[in-house]
Amino acid sequence: MPSIARAAVEEIVRRIVTERFAAVPAAPTLVVDASARHMHVSREHLDQLFGPGYELTVHRPLYQPGHFAARETVTLIGPRSRLISNLRILGPIRSRSQVELAFTDAISLGLENVPIRLSGDLDGTPGAFLMGPRGIVELKEGVIRAAIHAHMNPAEAAYYGVQHGDEMKLRVAGLAPVTFERVRVRVDKTTLLNVHMDTDEANACGLHLAKEIELVK
Amino acid sequence: MPSIARAAVEEIVRRIVTERFAAVPAAPTLVVDASARHMHVSREHLDQLFGPGYELTVHRPLYQPGHFAARETVTLIGPRSRLISNLRILGPIRSRSQVELAFTDAISLGLENVPIRLSGDLDGTPGAFLMGPRGIVELKEGVIRAAIHAHMNPAEAAYYGVQHGDEMKLRVAGLAPVTFERVRVRVDKTTLLNVHMDTDEANACGLHLAKEIELVK
Repeated sequence: MPSIARAAVEEIVRRIVTERFAAVPAAPTLVVDASARHMHVSREHLDQLFGPGYELTVHRPLYQPGHFAARETVTLIGPRSRLISNLRILGPIRSRSQVELAFTDAISLGLENVPIRLSGDLDGTPGAFLMGPRGIVELKEGVIRAAIHAHMNPAEAAYYGVQHGDEMKLRVAGLAPVTFERVRVRVDKTTLLNVHMDTDEANACGLHLAKEIELVK
Repeated sequence: MPSIARAAVEEIVRRIVTERFAAVPAAPTLVVDASARHMHVSREHLDQLFGPGYELTVHRPLYQPGHFAARETVTLIGPRSRLISNLRILGPIRSRSQVELAFTDAISLGLENVPIRLSGDLDGTPGAFLMGPRGIVELKEGVIRAAIHAHMNPAEAAYYGVQHGDEMKLRVAGLAPVTFERVRVRVDKTTLLNVHMDTDEANACGLHLAKEIELVK
């Protein structure tokens, strides 16, 4: 029987162990965030609200690389002259302005028919007025309640066995356990696994008290 | 072979049909209501807030017989002097005052540790000040977020195969489908089948848009 050098044995063992672990990838870290009401602003509208060439400044970086809550806020004016003050802008700027409200916010503003949409899907949505320190913008459309969604990169999507556009379930356990049944999957190679829900959803499930959260296909 | 009169045959058929239908009772009508923030008031506190011997007046009858939204409202004052105006009183009066807020309300008021409780389970809960037209009450405790619950009478409980204190699931279908997993069952012979959720829960599931709601064991 031929003898095998110790180094060769170790190499074989190392290769087997590595292959086994690679075959069972670790679960990605699941971060669930409650998005308070906010807006995304276009270059054109930022000029009108804050002055020509104005640049957003960073109040707080968000979980997704490059995204941030800006120091800048606007006043949102709905029908019947009801207001929401200090509506925070999230950066960076986008091609189209968009206001994201929870139903509680929308109802308090007098907007009772805000649709549930994915970000960017704005055709036919209600409008509102925005007031900044340098001017007012009439937003013709762009007010939505954002549908609960899960950002993830292709490796994370592969881990869950889902694709861009699929729907998953999010179960938040605790005193007020809730399962959200249509969590829209958004796959992008620049993002990290991150579920975004609004404040109504977060408050309904007591997200700030939740100890156990599960995302399943 | 003896002949049977037509009337006798009809009688037998009628009895069999009646027994069959009685064995499969019809599903009770499920009514799901969103309870906006409100309070229940004791005799003593009503005297202090509105004057000695004051009686609540009916603004709108509620679904449960004898219960009503009163015309009377109070101002709720939380820590850091934040207010909620026009907090509606629900009648009739109770042995103990109780304020029911959604988490959205509680957070806006500066009360960040409001517990999720069943109605009447008030020991150790936060307090607040109440202001009425004739006086101010310091409520030492009694501010809760009401746990989602289903009122039903014994026949309805028997239909679902549940008992007082059990938990059921409520699934609200639609664009933002949500399953509430711990709906507390409250059996009382004077009540009608009626699920109560708060405005956060109603707005999270888009209750005002929901076309299909299911209560299951």
